[in-house]
Amino acid sequence: MSGSSLGKLFTVSNFGESHGKAIGCVIDGCPAGMSLTESDIQQELDRRKPGTSRHVTQRQEPDTVKILSGIYEGKTTGTPIALLIENQDQRSKDYNNITQSFRPGHADFTYWHKFGIRDPRGGGRSSARLTAPTVAAGAVAKKWLKEQYGIQIRGYMSQLGPIHIPFKQWEDVPTNPFFAPNAEIVPELERYMDALRKEGDSIGARIEVVAENVPIGLGEPIYDRLDADIAYVMMGLNAVKGVSIGAGFESIAQKGSEHGDEITPEGFLSNHAGGILGGISSGQDITVSLAIKPTSSIRIERRSINTDNEPVMVQTLGRHDPCVGIRATPIAEALLALVLIDHILIQRAYQT
Amino acid sequence: MSGSSLGKLFTVSNFGESHGKAIGCVIDGCPAGMSLTESDIQQELDRRKPGTSRHVTQRQEPDTVKILSGIYEGKTTGTPIALLIENQDQRSKDYNNITQSFRPGHADFTYWHKFGIRDPRGGGRSSARLTAPTVAAGAVAKKWLKEQYGIQIRGYMSQLGPIHIPFKQWEDVPTNPFFAPNAEIVPELERYMDALRKEGDSIGARIEVVAENVPIGLGEPIYDRLDADIAYVMMGLNAVKGVSIGAGFESIAQKGSEHGDEITPEGFLSNHAGGILGGISSGQDITVSLAIKPTSSIRIERRSINTDNEPVMVQTLGRHDPCVGIRATPIAEALLALVLIDHILIQRAYQT
Amino acid sequence: MSGSSLGKLFTVSNFGESHGKAIGCVIDGCPAGMSLTESDIQQELDRRKPGTSRHVTQRQEPDTVKILSGIYEGKTTGTPIALLIENQDQRSKDYNNITQSFRPGHADFTYWHKFGIRDPRGGGRSSARLTAPTVAAGAVAKKWLKEQYGIQIRGYMSQLGPIHIPFKQWEDVPTNPFFAPNAEIVPELERYMDALRKEGDSIGARIEVVAENVPIGLGEPIYDRLDADIAYVMMGLNAVKGVSIGAGFESIAQKGSEHGDEITPEGFLSNHAGGILGGISSGQDITVSLAIKPTSSIRIERRSINTDNEPVMVQTLGRHDPCVGIRATPIAEALLALVLIDHILIQRAYQT
Amino acid sequence: MSGSSLGKLFTVSNFGESHGKAIGCVIDGCPAGMSLTESDIQQELDRRKPGTSRHVTQRQEPDTVKILSGIYEGKTTGTPIALLIENQDQRSKDYNNITQSFRPGHADFTYWHKFGIRDPRGGGRSSARLTAPTVAAGAVAKKWLKEQYGIQIRGYMSQLGPIHIPFKQWEDVPTNPFFAPNAEIVPELERYMDALRKEGDSIGARIEVVAENVPIGLGEPIYDRLDADIAYVMMGLNAVKGVSIGAGFESIAQKGSEHGDEITPEGFLSNHAGGILGGISSGQDITVSLAIKPTSSIRIERRSINTDNEPVMVQTLGRHDPCVGIRATPIAEALLALVLIDHILIQRAYQT
Repeated sequence: MSGSSLGKLFTVSNFGESHGKAIGCVIDGCPAGMSLTESDIQQELDRRKPGTSRHVTQRQEPDTVKILSGIYEGKTTGTPIALLIENQDQRSKDYNNITQSFRPGHADFTYWHKFGIRDPRGGGRSSARLTAPTVAAGAVAKKWLKEQYGIQIRGYMSQLGPIHIPFKQWEDVPTNPFFAPNAEIVPELERYMDALRKEGDSIGARIEVVAENVPIGLGEPIYDRLDADIAYVMMGLNAVKGVSIGAGFESIAQKGSEHGDEITPEGFLSNHAGGILGGISSGQDITVSLAIKPTSSIRIERRSINTDNEPVMVQTLGRHDPCVGIRATPIAEALLALVLIDHILIQRAYQT
Repeated sequence: MSGSSLGKLFTVSNFGESHGKAIGCVIDGCPAGMSLTESDIQQELDRRKPGTSRHVTQRQEPDTVKILSGIYEGKTTGTPIALLIENQDQRSKDYNNITQSFRPGHADFTYWHKFGIRDPRGGGRSSARLTAPTVAAGAVAKKWLKEQYGIQIRGYMSQLGPIHIPFKQWEDVPTNPFFAPNAEIVPELERYMDALRKEGDSIGARIEVVAENVPIGLGEPIYDRLDADIAYVMMGLNAVKGVSIGAGFESIAQKGSEHGDEITPEGFLSNHAGGILGGISSGQDITVSLAIKPTSSIRIERRSINTDNEPVMVQTLGRHDPCVGIRATPIAEALLALVLIDHILIQRAYQT
Repeated sequence: MSGSSLGKLFTVSNFGESHGKAIGCVIDGCPAGMSLTESDIQQELDRRKPGTSRHVTQRQEPDTVKILSGIYEGKTTGTPIALLIENQDQRSKDYNNITQSFRPGHADFTYWHKFGIRDPRGGGRSSARLTAPTVAAGAVAKKWLKEQYGIQIRGYMSQLGPIHIPFKQWEDVPTNPFFAPNAEIVPELERYMDALRKEGDSIGARIEVVAENVPIGLGEPIYDRLDADIAYVMMGLNAVKGVSIGAGFESIAQKGSEHGDEITPEGFLSNHAGGILGGISSGQDITVSLAIKPTSSIRIERRSINTDNEPVMVQTLGRHDPCVGIRATPIAEALLALVLIDHILIQRAYQT
Repeated sequence: MSGSSLGKLFTVSNFGESHGKAIGCVIDGCPAGMSLTESDIQQELDRRKPGTSRHVTQRQEPDTVKILSGIYEGKTTGTPIALLIENQDQRSKDYNNITQSFRPGHADFTYWHKFGIRDPRGGGRSSARLTAPTVAAGAVAKKWLKEQYGIQIRGYMSQLGPIHIPFKQWEDVPTNPFFAPNAEIVPELERYMDALRKEGDSIGARIEVVAENVPIGLGEPIYDRLDADIAYVMMGLNAVKGVSIGAGFESIAQKGSEHGDEITPEGFLSNHAGGILGGISSGQDITVSLAIKPTSSIRIERRSINTDNEPVMVQTLGRHDPCVGIRATPIAEALLALVLIDHILIQRAYQT
């Protein structure tokens, strides 16, 4: 059951559990010679960390990252970069009552059957907390992509439950805890979340990620395509149930004369392809959408069973994000960065 | 630029171009001792092959598969199974006029920039013809999954352009060229396609795939998740722009109290999860949806450029599927089979 | 039981059995734009093929290679190159008598226990015949290494059983069937082999392989080292029981003041390292030695058991190489080429 | 430049430098449900650790291992096990004088050229210190192999420079710092080492490793063979220049009638094969030999160059093992354990 690594040349190996001693990752294959400090990584972790608004989990985790290896005199040496985040705020007792029951919609059930043992503290390894090492590794990738290729990767929330969020401007994204690209709609989002929290319920969301200045030619024709790899990392993010690129599910009802992006000497006239043709990047912006399901851990009582297959009612107290989508934007950005750096390194192997 | 292989234990390595000598694949890691004949594979290839109705490409390809290795006295030996499909109907001349131009929506542009050379005959390696080896490998996987675990993998078309196709019964699927699970709607689909063909345009479609009797526990917690691997293979299928599992994009507007599937001693009460919780199979049916874009090769003239970056008008004659989604169902089934067999073999490694 | 592929970026997937329809391989990851014809590959296959002298197996196999894909207008397209060698001279009847017995020293025993089924015709997949696809893939690698980097890879026999073969000159190697770098010793080798053939016995050999003009910097510090990868491919060659690099087993009795190669501004003063320091190429010639065991298939009767664990006497008739080492030189060269091209491509990914 | 991971199902990802903050590894794919404590791992680390006799480096490193993840209530959970060893005794100043020069026989030269930057402190990542995480991971593998299959993996020194060490009994191995299986010869080894240390020179050694009770059937026919994987890990161990299995280089002068191990219903009559036939384990003991070169870091002055390609004399002070072979035995055992566990897990995937 290995399978905790991502990437072919730039690989990230993830480890840890929500309430174990530490979480972290090993980045292997980062090019030598790039300046890298812990604060380069910390700033991305801070965008994802819990406890930053009343709309996310109140667990207090500074998520302070330590670089254990791979840096000498402030520069990457080309050898593995181990990143460590020690867990601080461990309240295992909150979880004792649900150890023997399976929360509906949660990984409890599948972990139990798969491993025959599971660490119930905070969901163990199934916790969204394990996205922190991904964000940390993504920060390294993002920095390199920016410095070497001018690639910019940004994301935003485009829908919170029933509320569509019209894109206004990128500048609004960092001004609110939702990563909404439209400051005017934020009060509505806050009212919605406040009501939801009172109900003890949770809600889904939709996230968009965009990569600009991507070189042409990333991805292979069959199987190791760029779109396939993007779908892989995004669908693998906790709570994601759908991934689309470019026109996505809108393509179904489009005709070829509408969908196919016309080209002029000055460039493409539209971007239904989302920057990928035949599995290979076209140089247009790469645009990806994620459908994120509502958090499974809710206060509302639900029917379930325990490990003896007896019926039980399950109510999840503890501290949980009522909308896991709210903190998903920086993670999705990190995942896209990890896919791109890997494909760019592979492309370099074949350039003359 | 390796990257033409799929799978960790049960691997498939794909080769060939649309109008080269042959296409095929090598299956490595198939368990020994299974009866396997060419006709086991041929029957799946026949479901995908061109020329079977007026709604698909009229290229005449029998797609006859030959097993070159890995079988002794009618049984798999546990060594690589090489499958060969010789190309018959090669009409390279149809493509000469587009060699130097890029068809909008097509991989011409990206292949040219990536490799600096491309085989223009029938789209070369970017042709949907290269899904035939995938279907052939999937036939082997399907047979093993059925015999060893009783797993059944079936698919159908749920939408053709603007026309939603309500699910009636599985029995209807093989009775029409659309893989529509509803024979009554077929005349409407045919009328739609006939009109489209006259226009010289193309259209998108939506395909559903379902796997039944899947063991609990397939997939790893982080990165090598079952949902991630499914998204990977499906998004990597030609023309796919979106993949969803279970409730998919509907999850965005769902509340946790609605989305999370309740459990009773008799089983789950719903399947919004699509059979996967925390990236791991739950034993419920795995349900996957694909959004397929309209074919890029259309008769309608479109603006584009040539390899000298000069404006040109491109009109694609030749023989093309006006809706690539029509033949996508058996391919999607094959891809799901390939993901499942790989994860089942990995699971077996850890069972006691 | 996948595991028939070699390489990370330039991968080779091998298939086939000694007396099946065909043997071959798929090369994935070959750079685009290189001229490549079947005769480029055939000339290397001809160096390895059987029946070229009375000292090797008399099986008549032209080993004619066909390129099925990956070439357009005489050039590699960057997509998979499938190579096919059809088997011609299949004399399965020679093997019928040994189907149920295990030849001492042979893979019969382990295949039987591993797979529960085995193709007994000519050793099935355990036959040295399966090195032909490796040689074919190596020919492609060699051509690229020569054209792009001026790398030359050559090998020779340095010992035939008890007879040491002093290196005289490279020019002698192609003049005799032993790949001996010393024409004067050839009559002695022939006399030895003639006597051995009369006895019905077989003998071991030692092969040396040298790569010149190798770039500095190939290989990773830990695990994916260049020396490790060389040892991997060489020990994986049929009948190899030992691999050494540079001073090899002589290093045991050397002092550091003798072994460590001193360096001057003009270069290294010796090459005990065999061109690799800390797992990474140093730019010196890479020198590798292989110890090859005697062929297991001999006419002399030997004690063994059958599949019912009953004692039997086994005598192998058929057509066999009395010294598998004689044809090993071109295979070892091919393997070294495959390792080098893979590491060079990886190195290019990181160069600036 | 990824490449710091080992294994397909049971993978080990290594990180760290000799004088960085910490070294360690992530084990991914360890089966769930095995009892595992830090002391299980510590006892193997203690066999390898420095400073245990006057014949090895005097660096004081307790090499205390911490388990950061993957264990819950004393048992493995099937998720990644991160192991951390903090560096204590960092004397970077000893190395300052050699930062700009290349020690003959050392990886300084190749790291410099490969990465353009190197951590000179204690050899950075090229230090034999980085074998500690391998030993730690190997301890986990060894425990599982012992408990699940009764496999025992043991090693010993068979030669120290010119002194052959006749095997007497396993019981003697832990009684002396050389891992010599013959207590009587230890005084001679000590005198030899004392003299060598006075000279400021170093010496090579030969190590044998044996695995007993190995299941039949491990390894694949072509490329992923068991012998190939053993050669890979062993040649990848610092300072190893040769690897052989069974009769090894003795096979060259053996005839087939001598080398091929005869079989009776009671078992094999000899073990020239070293437990591997056709790349697959035969159930006999697996026997492996390693040729280890003398340490490159010696007090005797040697000719070299600096990073400006100017001639310099290099003398290495600091604290070094005069014979790296002395501490190699537990590392070689660990490496063999890691290869075996990986192949056993793969075998399990195919067993019925």
